[in-house]
Amino acid sequence: MQSTIDTILAFRDARDRKQFHNPKDLATAIAIEAAELQEHFLWKSQEASHALAQTSEAREEFADIMIYMIQYADIVGIDIEKEV
Amino acid sequence: MQSTIDTILAFRDARDRKQFHNPKDLATAIAIEAAELQEHFLWKSQEASHALAQTSEAREEFADIMIYMIQYADIVGIDIEKEV
Amino acid sequence: MQSTIDTILAFRDARDRKQFHNPKDLATAIAIEAAELQEHFLWKSQEASHALAQTSEAREEFADIMIYMIQYADIVGIDIEKEV
Amino acid sequence: MQSTIDTILAFRDARDRKQFHNPKDLATAIAIEAAELQEHFLWKSQEASHALAQTSEAREEFADIMIYMIQYADIVGIDIEKEV
Repeated sequence: MQSTIDTILAFRDARDRKQFHNPKDLATAIAIEAAELQEHFLWKSQEASHALAQTSEAREEFADIMIYMIQYADIVGIDIEKEV
Repeated sequence: MQSTIDTILAFRDARDRKQFHNPKDLATAIAIEAAELQEHFLWKSQEASHALAQTSEAREEFADIMIYMIQYADIVGIDIEKEV
Repeated sequence: MQSTIDTILAFRDARDRKQFHNPKDLATAIAIEAAELQEHFLWKSQEASHALAQTSEAREEFADIMIYMIQYADIVGIDIEKEV
Repeated sequence: MQSTIDTILAFRDARDRKQFHNPKDLATAIAIEAAELQEHFLWKSQEASHALAQTSEAREEFADIMIYMIQYADIVGIDIEKEV
């Protein structure tokens, strides 16, 4: 996973975005992406959600949450590989 | 990170919880934990959130989100180490 | 407010949507719309959010939350005018 | 509903809380309370949520969301009776 983390942080730095990053907004970004993931299952049954989660859109929403999780961990100094 | 993932899934299975797990509820669980993380920063400034994120309670909230992320990935068949 | 409530529920019934409505999904719909409202203020300061909240988009997000609140209240039998 | 709105805003002012209120944090407060409402239905079916929503705890969560909605509307200048 370290190479993914490195890629995400390099992408962030290439776009000079770290200056906007703080735990408060990153926690909100995680929550917003989690809401977007939930949207895939809205009005659907728990059973139906298994198939719906396999769409590329739903898989990308999950990845979007992880991207903000990695950025949160970096800002706060959490070693996501070891501490979680 | 693989050993953490193994520990979390073993804990889940020891308590026989996998039967309740589905993408819809796990996405909601992620969102609920993200809201609990946000609560640490509510009414506080972006600047102040840096220090607030260092409390053990805030760090545990982050870990709680990761636990549900790992369980979501397992149910959906996402290799969190490779795919994200 | 009663006329607004009546309009929203009539709109729901005209589209035959009540059949999909249940407290679990309506609570999630409220949470999703609340996340969309938060998106308007992401990376922005608390001070800047006063002006950002005045855009028609942000005002519409607030209305969207209210629409699901009204539908939740109707399904659960909460008199939003009297009980809240 | 106007008397409820008046009561909530008087309660806020008596505790001198308006100074902390801004759209960004109020939107997050709404989202946090919505997550707490969702928690009542987690791992439960859509059908089961009808009965679960009738508990006083779930009804109070709904009221908590409305309280922050009313405070958001006041800060932003939305007439919740007329505009929504």
